[in-house]
Amino acid sequence: MLVVSLMRLGEEEERLKALFPEVEFEFYKHPSYLPDTSKANMDVLLSYHADIDRAFIKEARNLKWIMWYATGVNALPLECLKENHIALTNAKGVHAQQLTEFLFAYLLDDYKALKETYAEQLNKIYNHKRTTPTIADQTIMFLGTGKIPQSAARIAQQFGMTTIGLNTTGHKADGFHETYLLKDKFKYYHQADIIVNVLPETEKTKYLLTSEDFKQMQPHTLFINLGRGTIVREKVLVDALKNSEIRKAYLDVFETEPLSPHSELYHLENVVLTSHISGNGNHNKTQATEIFIQNLQHFLNKGTLIENIVDLNKGY
Amino acid sequence: MLVVSLMRLGEEEERLKALFPEVEFEFYKHPSYLPDTSKANMDVLLSYHADIDRAFIKEARNLKWIMWYATGVNALPLECLKENHIALTNAKGVHAQQLTEFLFAYLLDDYKALKETYAEQLNKIYNHKRTTPTIADQTIMFLGTGKIPQSAARIAQQFGMTTIGLNTTGHKADGFHETYLLKDKFKYYHQADIIVNVLPETEKTKYLLTSEDFKQMQPHTLFINLGRGTIVREKVLVDALKNSEIRKAYLDVFETEPLSPHSELYHLENVVLTSHISGNGNHNKTQATEIFIQNLQHFLNKGTLIENIVDLNKGY
Repeated sequence: MLVVSLMRLGEEEERLKALFPEVEFEFYKHPSYLPDTSKANMDVLLSYHADIDRAFIKEARNLKWIMWYATGVNALPLECLKENHIALTNAKGVHAQQLTEFLFAYLLDDYKALKETYAEQLNKIYNHKRTTPTIADQTIMFLGTGKIPQSAARIAQQFGMTTIGLNTTGHKADGFHETYLLKDKFKYYHQADIIVNVLPETEKTKYLLTSEDFKQMQPHTLFINLGRGTIVREKVLVDALKNSEIRKAYLDVFETEPLSPHSELYHLENVVLTSHISGNGNHNKTQATEIFIQNLQHFLNKGTLIENIVDLNKGY
Repeated sequence: MLVVSLMRLGEEEERLKALFPEVEFEFYKHPSYLPDTSKANMDVLLSYHADIDRAFIKEARNLKWIMWYATGVNALPLECLKENHIALTNAKGVHAQQLTEFLFAYLLDDYKALKETYAEQLNKIYNHKRTTPTIADQTIMFLGTGKIPQSAARIAQQFGMTTIGLNTTGHKADGFHETYLLKDKFKYYHQADIIVNVLPETEKTKYLLTSEDFKQMQPHTLFINLGRGTIVREKVLVDALKNSEIRKAYLDVFETEPLSPHSELYHLENVVLTSHISGNGNHNKTQATEIFIQNLQHFLNKGTLIENIVDLNKGY
């Protein structure tokens, strides 16, 4: 059995070889180094590269399983995997901690006016009268109620916030005071002081938010996007911010990435931008490898996978 | 019975009058408006003004109780209150939520590199490679284990941090994995990635931290001061930061307030300053009045106080 990784895994490489002496491992720094024979023979593929397209899958004739070292799988040709009966697992959960920390970093940066106080520091102004609002009595709404929003919602509750989650079936979820149907979103926007998108990109979530969504939100709403940029067209978001339909946005993801230096977003006063870094973490590869190990053990023993299996129809 | 407030309390004034029709209330915008007769006759005083000195107390011949609308009572002549058998209560707890929010705002601003990413935004740089450290595996040490650090430590635990508290007797406290004796601090500094001061100013805490303390901390330590500036001489702190004995400091309080525009702190790269605003909140007066009401009811019924009584010997 041949496992091919299209990235180097540092210390994890020796660990994998020691744990699975019966398995052959090959590690490449980049997909371009992969020999054709390995591509044709590999049983399992580890990667997070955008190069895995239909042509690649066609040539990987022996491939049975892809372990994707990221959470969002929208870059992969899911239909093609389904046709070829290739299983897919991902690194869901690995990013929960980092994304939760970024969410509260953004939220408190805004509510505690840190950019304004830093400008005062640079100008040597001691403004003792500044009073900042508290997040404690605020209502935070998450689009999506999976592992990441659950982890974030639990902390929000500890801060004294009210937590609302929207999901496809309206099912209850840990950490949320209330959950509702995502399709009824217009009924609930007015309750939210903060709206956070953490939805994955699927056919159903692409451009889910339209200009009407932002019109239905409260003018004081803070919008935070840590999910996928394609939840809303950049133009729609720019207009909503320009017209003050919402108060402000913190964005880590964009409709087109990398964000163009010509993007209008750079010209707005009421937006804070980071460069799709909220999932980057020092321990991501180690934690994703942990998930892979659990699955590989099961795969060798029983021929099936048990953790983080992606539903190829749903796309997450 | 006469209750005098040296600040206006907005809607709370009518509420107090309605709740206690048998009590006479007088509200002044500033101590300078207080008539001598009221000063001589008042039974109870509500204030947070630095004007309450020995001379003031001497003239307030009928005064039995001061309700201090702040937490730190170091500006009051505590010895003089003791001699004159004047009870003191404060607004402890009212600021816990705001201070906790500021603590995590500072912490995440640093760990998530928000100042660096904002500089990138202003320069239209899309730096997708940036990886930020997580607070999850870090150890946070609090000097003091009262209401505020307990509230903060509970949230720190929810984020996955290890929490250590130092206090005068080493007693256990809610939210802390470990608590130790404050006087043994040199033994424990090396465990901490983040050290937070939330101690009140008393004779024992004044200049508690010396240059030796910062030498004993780890070079990567982040120091956060939300307690009182007098915990350390400004010069000692400036030297520690200049010599990189610690990595960085977030300071909301200073040895001398307001902070002078000539302070050397303004010239350091590794310090973030706010203007003693971490206790300012829109609901502080309402919440402090709530504490006052509980006490006044008890005072009228039984002649004693029950909540937030300051020990005049300890100073907190």
